[in-house]
Amino acid sequence: MNQVVNFKNFDGAHPLPAKLDAEALDRLFREARTHNAFLDTPVPHALLEEAVELAKMGPTAVNTSPLRIVFVETDEGKALLEPSLAEGNLAKTMAAPVTAIVGFDMAFYDKLPKLFPHADARAWFVGNDAFIDLTARQSGTLQAAYFILALRAVGLDAGPMGGFDNAKVDEAFFAGTTVKSNFLINIGYGDADKLYPRSPRLDFEEIASFA
Amino acid sequence: MNQVVNFKNFDGAHPLPAKLDAEALDRLFREARTHNAFLDTPVPHALLEEAVELAKMGPTAVNTSPLRIVFVETDEGKALLEPSLAEGNLAKTMAAPVTAIVGFDMAFYDKLPKLFPHADARAWFVGNDAFIDLTARQSGTLQAAYFILALRAVGLDAGPMGGFDNAKVDEAFFAGTTVKSNFLINIGYGDADKLYPRSPRLDFEEIASFA
Repeated sequence: MNQVVNFKNFDGAHPLPAKLDAEALDRLFREARTHNAFLDTPVPHALLEEAVELAKMGPTAVNTSPLRIVFVETDEGKALLEPSLAEGNLAKTMAAPVTAIVGFDMAFYDKLPKLFPHADARAWFVGNDAFIDLTARQSGTLQAAYFILALRAVGLDAGPMGGFDNAKVDEAFFAGTTVKSNFLINIGYGDADKLYPRSPRLDFEEIASFA
Repeated sequence: MNQVVNFKNFDGAHPLPAKLDAEALDRLFREARTHNAFLDTPVPHALLEEAVELAKMGPTAVNTSPLRIVFVETDEGKALLEPSLAEGNLAKTMAAPVTAIVGFDMAFYDKLPKLFPHADARAWFVGNDAFIDLTARQSGTLQAAYFILALRAVGLDAGPMGGFDNAKVDEAFFAGTTVKSNFLINIGYGDADKLYPRSPRLDFEEIASFA
């Protein structure tokens, strides 16, 4: 892993880095879609691992890195998940090659001696429950988004969803731990024939302004 | 905009889509870094707008799309932001070409007739303050992460940070609106010579498991 960054086409000054090519932008953002139906094609563990390895490099507050994931893929795992699912998510989730339970570790600060070795960052959190909750949710959700885009980057499709009982999932998969579920992501090779038309987005002016 | 997705090298069956090339993965994840110092190079509005246009295509709960951004770039804007900054973030933020205030609109549901036209999704939220708060923060933070990666995708560098007074920022920039600040992102062309070594990350086995 490089300790100092210099993009291949960027020497620290001019020429400035070019943007990713159109195919990459399409894959990540413009043509990528939330998939509800997947091809009957297995998902290699190596690709899931690569997506995690990519996502974990993204920035989090104080490098806290609270994201935790359980990849549910066996019949036993799916059966454990099934009672937590809202009816509208049931069939598609049971049929998906893999369902990731994306969560965050409320005791993330116990990893800070490894993650943030240059200061006693653990002490900034311990005893401050509001700050712990904010950081776990905020940085864990940032990492979940990096993970969605990382799945797309390695050629997989994602179907992120709410619509499940967090408490039931936590009881089934995280009992006795400090991990809480955030949301679910069905993963596989999406069946483009089963997509609905894309929903509208806001205009730039509805989202952003300059000051 | 395409209504049905077919990646250029993917016809709905085999061959499966390849992953992005190594240079793209480096740019987005592996070699990208949180920058604290930027080159004295202006940031074109067109690139900021393109990053927003890319980020807005990422998935959110019920397509709620609560992300809102103010790009602070003028002397007047920076002066308005200055009193909100923690001392450790002050000098680098005042020097950054652009600072994005990334927030979420707590009244996001008023846009649902446009964003989710096939059902009265607005009614699912109105009066349910806990669900509104959860959705604004969760989906607004997902979109903030898409935006960080979109900045990198268009060739810019990002320096996301907490360490500011949310209430002061909200008063200075969002008074009389329903928008709340989430975090800040300094934006520009990063000065690679000013980077610290990258902090460690967790091992795959500390993050993820299979069930």
